[in-house]
Amino acid sequence: MEIVCIKLGGSLITDKNKPYTARPQIITQLVTELKKAFQDNPNLNLVLGNGAGSFAHQSAQKYDTYNGFSTKEGALGACVVHNDAAKLNSILVEECIKQELPVYSLQPSAMMLANNRSLSDSYWSSLNVLLKKRIIPFVYGDVILDTSTGSTIFSTDTLFRIIGTYLKEQGYTIRMIHVGDYSGVLDKDGQVISQITPDTYDSMKDALTSSESTDVTGGMKLKVEEMIKLAKKGVTSYIIDGTLPGNISIALSSRSVGTQILSTNAS
Amino acid sequence: MEIVCIKLGGSLITDKNKPYTARPQIITQLVTELKKAFQDNPNLNLVLGNGAGSFAHQSAQKYDTYNGFSTKEGALGACVVHNDAAKLNSILVEECIKQELPVYSLQPSAMMLANNRSLSDSYWSSLNVLLKKRIIPFVYGDVILDTSTGSTIFSTDTLFRIIGTYLKEQGYTIRMIHVGDYSGVLDKDGQVISQITPDTYDSMKDALTSSESTDVTGGMKLKVEEMIKLAKKGVTSYIIDGTLPGNISIALSSRSVGTQILSTNAS
Repeated sequence: MEIVCIKLGGSLITDKNKPYTARPQIITQLVTELKKAFQDNPNLNLVLGNGAGSFAHQSAQKYDTYNGFSTKEGALGACVVHNDAAKLNSILVEECIKQELPVYSLQPSAMMLANNRSLSDSYWSSLNVLLKKRIIPFVYGDVILDTSTGSTIFSTDTLFRIIGTYLKEQGYTIRMIHVGDYSGVLDKDGQVISQITPDTYDSMKDALTSSESTDVTGGMKLKVEEMIKLAKKGVTSYIIDGTLPGNISIALSSRSVGTQILSTNAS
Repeated sequence: MEIVCIKLGGSLITDKNKPYTARPQIITQLVTELKKAFQDNPNLNLVLGNGAGSFAHQSAQKYDTYNGFSTKEGALGACVVHNDAAKLNSILVEECIKQELPVYSLQPSAMMLANNRSLSDSYWSSLNVLLKKRIIPFVYGDVILDTSTGSTIFSTDTLFRIIGTYLKEQGYTIRMIHVGDYSGVLDKDGQVISQITPDTYDSMKDALTSSESTDVTGGMKLKVEEMIKLAKKGVTSYIIDGTLPGNISIALSSRSVGTQILSTNAS
């Protein structure tokens, strides 16, 4: 069985330069596309995730939640950042439910634990039941509680690497689609690189730019690096432009669009 | 170490007869009381929980989520009910954060699983880290995914029994405070019963009334029964009137207010 993990990027679904500003029009459009794909294809199994965009990146930076806390203010900060992240997810879930797409929000920080910023512990029972019942788990970049530092942050990219790895180990075939507000990974001349493999990545990585707005989780370079790790495990990823209606369907049907990070098996 | 679990009842924080209607004034008052207690007493460790009130009881009844689902509509229903429950919790968390009370929402359905409506599986790492860092975990009555039936519902009372039992096993001393919009458990003549023990409960249980509004989780009788189960494990519970400012502080200081369900050890 194949599972497709689709990430709706923070820079796509929010205005990253205006705190707490979602983009309702693009959110509606994305959910409409997802609903159609889910309805038209009874064999399509999805996991959705959304970035934090302008809802949690600013607060995460303010409180330095990625690096943990040692004061009362820092502890409150972890609460604020988690709440900000959950808020944006709830806007997306609300739109899905309005369009009758059966999504179920899953709070990453309730089912994962970190130790020194790395995953140390996880709980998969709820995700497994949702997938068996063909309900779409919907995760989001979140504060993760950390036994050493108090808190850290797992971006949706990191979560998808963790979730993808877990599901792969369970025997599923996994694909990833990262939906952003850019046409793909760009080379030095600003042209979309249509395919990257773990073998070709080394020669191009210095040219990858970070995103321009506040992004505590590292921008494009880190995204691609998470995907390269997955490619080595046999998972192919897409990076596509979500502002163009139809792109999600093209990627779902494995046709060429944006940048593909090809798995070692597929290349 | 003592942990006090405080439940803010659905009938207190919402208008149970008007769908999706919170009571902002009472919510602000309750959070102010909690903030003061938490600030004044550095040894006070709390777990908070809220009932679903008019946010999830109606939808839970519509979709019969307690008994599970076998259709697409029922699966969507589980998503709707969870979303409704999370929504009310987020209103409370938002007010706590506004008042700088460090609460961290924990989604029960991400950390617990049921089989035929009973807990079959649970994950406590996140709760444990929060308690160690003196951040207040904030749970809520929720849809729980069920390996047999698809879904069921754990009321906050049921969750508190599960959480209280777990924490007791970890060596903590546990007390429960149920904050409602009623003065306590009433006898046949409408008088508050000030103390109930597992021994005296049998003789009075037929007189306990269910709540008047829609409540999929069983009303007062079920509440008291959950507390009797806890009392047998050494946990004392209070049922108090949250509309009267100061009652939470009285209960926190173990003075007499409302109804006490005394643990076997304490009686």
